[in-house]
Amino acid sequence: MAVAELSHAYTRTDFRNTHISYVSSSTRISYNHRLSFRHLPRTQTTAIRCSVTSDQIQAPAGIDIRDPKQKPDCFGVFCLTYDLKADEQTKSWKKMINIAVSGAAGMISNHLLFKLASGEVFGPDQPLALKLLGSERSFEALEGVAMELEDSLFPLLREVSIGIDPYEVFEDVEWALLIGAKPRGPGMERAGLLDINGQIFAEQGKALNAVASRNVKVMVVGNPCNTNALICMKNAPNIPAKNFHALTRLDENRAKCQLALKAGVFYDKVSNVTIWGNHSTTQVPDFLNAKIHGIPVPEVIRDRKWLEEEFTEKVQKRGGVLIKKWGRSSAASTAVSIVDAIRSLVTPTPEGDWFSTGVYTNGNPYGIAEDIVFSMPCRSKGDGDYELVKDVIFDDYLRNRIKKSEDELLAEKKCVAHLTGEGIAVCDLPEDTMLPGEM
Amino acid sequence: MAVAELSHAYTRTDFRNTHISYVSSSTRISYNHRLSFRHLPRTQTTAIRCSVTSDQIQAPAGIDIRDPKQKPDCFGVFCLTYDLKADEQTKSWKKMINIAVSGAAGMISNHLLFKLASGEVFGPDQPLALKLLGSERSFEALEGVAMELEDSLFPLLREVSIGIDPYEVFEDVEWALLIGAKPRGPGMERAGLLDINGQIFAEQGKALNAVASRNVKVMVVGNPCNTNALICMKNAPNIPAKNFHALTRLDENRAKCQLALKAGVFYDKVSNVTIWGNHSTTQVPDFLNAKIHGIPVPEVIRDRKWLEEEFTEKVQKRGGVLIKKWGRSSAASTAVSIVDAIRSLVTPTPEGDWFSTGVYTNGNPYGIAEDIVFSMPCRSKGDGDYELVKDVIFDDYLRNRIKKSEDELLAEKKCVAHLTGEGIAVCDLPEDTMLPGEM
Repeated sequence: MAVAELSHAYTRTDFRNTHISYVSSSTRISYNHRLSFRHLPRTQTTAIRCSVTSDQIQAPAGIDIRDPKQKPDCFGVFCLTYDLKADEQTKSWKKMINIAVSGAAGMISNHLLFKLASGEVFGPDQPLALKLLGSERSFEALEGVAMELEDSLFPLLREVSIGIDPYEVFEDVEWALLIGAKPRGPGMERAGLLDINGQIFAEQGKALNAVASRNVKVMVVGNPCNTNALICMKNAPNIPAKNFHALTRLDENRAKCQLALKAGVFYDKVSNVTIWGNHSTTQVPDFLNAKIHGIPVPEVIRDRKWLEEEFTEKVQKRGGVLIKKWGRSSAASTAVSIVDAIRSLVTPTPEGDWFSTGVYTNGNPYGIAEDIVFSMPCRSKGDGDYELVKDVIFDDYLRNRIKKSEDELLAEKKCVAHLTGEGIAVCDLPEDTMLPGEM
Repeated sequence: MAVAELSHAYTRTDFRNTHISYVSSSTRISYNHRLSFRHLPRTQTTAIRCSVTSDQIQAPAGIDIRDPKQKPDCFGVFCLTYDLKADEQTKSWKKMINIAVSGAAGMISNHLLFKLASGEVFGPDQPLALKLLGSERSFEALEGVAMELEDSLFPLLREVSIGIDPYEVFEDVEWALLIGAKPRGPGMERAGLLDINGQIFAEQGKALNAVASRNVKVMVVGNPCNTNALICMKNAPNIPAKNFHALTRLDENRAKCQLALKAGVFYDKVSNVTIWGNHSTTQVPDFLNAKIHGIPVPEVIRDRKWLEEEFTEKVQKRGGVLIKKWGRSSAASTAVSIVDAIRSLVTPTPEGDWFSTGVYTNGNPYGIAEDIVFSMPCRSKGDGDYELVKDVIFDDYLRNRIKKSEDELLAEKKCVAHLTGEGIAVCDLPEDTMLPGEM
């Protein structure tokens, strides 16, 4: 009981600094969950927002300093409450939203969190709380990230909390951006990766089901993201299946860039690009329905051989080329694509255009197998929800390519049956389809 | 003549993809400068925006593809020109601005470049060209950064170019964000660091003087930034001395955060914080003139001992604590503070408030020695220019602290006299005043 012993000398960190309708997690979470929280020495806590000890606190005019004992989720002296409502009224801000980010100490998050906090994603009138999920190993790094967010003085960022227990971190979240995943170790088969990461996403799905907002939107970035999203969804039966997304937006962005390069146009002239299928090498960047200057791509780029044979490869090899040149994976552009993916759900889709996101296939109009997470073309009214686009065309080439990605995802599903509550896993994954640069 | 030999087999990279009033640098730059450009094998260029070979180019409607020979700065097939003016007219965009960033392959830039490109800094109607300055060693990484910017599809980002020659990269730039500097090697004295980085900034000052916009704003981030800014300024006599800044905004932001923590208020309630002096441990975070909820800080935080003895230390130790926790220096919050510093110059300062920036002391109303770069309180009308704030108060404590930082900067100036054209350098720097986390 090393952890229990520590709790005498240490005290739990709490970053909450705003007065919101927060329900104590103690009613929902078992004693074991509480103990699994990492505890911090008191001397470290001066670095953490809202971690003001009572003897340090002056009596500033107009500030509501509560007795820590009155706030059930505050431990000891680490509570200080601001009246956010006053700000909301004077600035006509929206109601604060809670956003959880997993893998919060990683490089993608290091870009994403600052974009979220700056107001770039949800707008200049949307205050937010960031809830960072990390691991025992990354806990100090999480503190570092929280300190940097603090030093950035973002007015909209009203709360930062950090933790390693998804049952705590996901409480009441309206968005869960699931970036953290284990990288593939040396000699690990894709089946092994599916299993090890699938377990993480099964656990996180259960946690979301138990404590998140009933309409939480879940964006899975950690690979293999389609099947991770499926596993997460299956473990969260009380959350609408439609709310789970697997990120294919970076692929869409890269596809637009390659089409622009080939056509000799600026990338903002390329629209209606769909990524179909799995975020793997079986993915299908769709040139048939894509447009340049509103004209179908095959009429602008008449080099069918390039479109069929080189285009997809250029999109897929991008990550690998970047790693080679840059020495790091493409964290910054991945974060941008997550921003794009969220914005596409919270702002109305421009007339005539669409965006790609990996979503649940049940009820799809394309004849794609049901009960998998598949990237497809979507439109949104900007309410966080989406509809699949109906007016797309197919030819034999596109059908065949989509079929291959569909087969792969059905095989992946069988391989994680033990994690979706559908029996015994049978893994028959013929080839390695991880994208270069995402190993 | 290894480089000259290479130029037969390789060809220079050029990222320019917009049609702007670009003057060939060949009239200004010597043959040696040209040769000092890094050359790339043709096979690598498919990754670079605008690097479309002529046999790949279709004939898209409405796109002005020029004969490469007509564009004097284009080599071979790597030219493609868009008509940005059409976009400017339809979208009522401002005229494009050119922004140079040095140390562009580093972590601070990796955050900053994406913030610039997103429109977060200069606004949603300001198209821009990013000109990335790196080193021979970092050239492939620069390509990686450019590729990620390309994949991010920022509509406002009309041009990305990369290079290792400041005489090329700084051409016509309206902003020069000088982040790159050599880190201090093992056993290197501060005088050695001043010399090695001073030489870089002397060269960059000369290049700005020769080719940049006549009203270029220069923000020096690379350390020791005050004296680097002075050196840069002295080597650019044709650019107004007032236009050179040394970044102390991260210190200001951290000071605001620490005052907020101590007072138990949200950081947006803290205003009028000045960082005086050098970006080093002699810097003076000014609590005397600072306000919380509009009330002077000493009336809100009555713990004078904390203000005099602990406050400065907390601000200064922040970087070191972060490195320890996070394992990396504070790139993200540094980038945010650069954004803040630029925004403070291009948007009007809120009524009654001010911001800190290290600027030239000539004509200052505080009695600070002339002819150094010193952080002081400023206000701006949002036109890129600023005025020093007059209504600040001093007490003996503040005067003495400011004097110490002034003395240090005067000693640093003597130490780099060989780089400012003022004679023989005499170095008498008694102690190490590098900030923790910035070694």
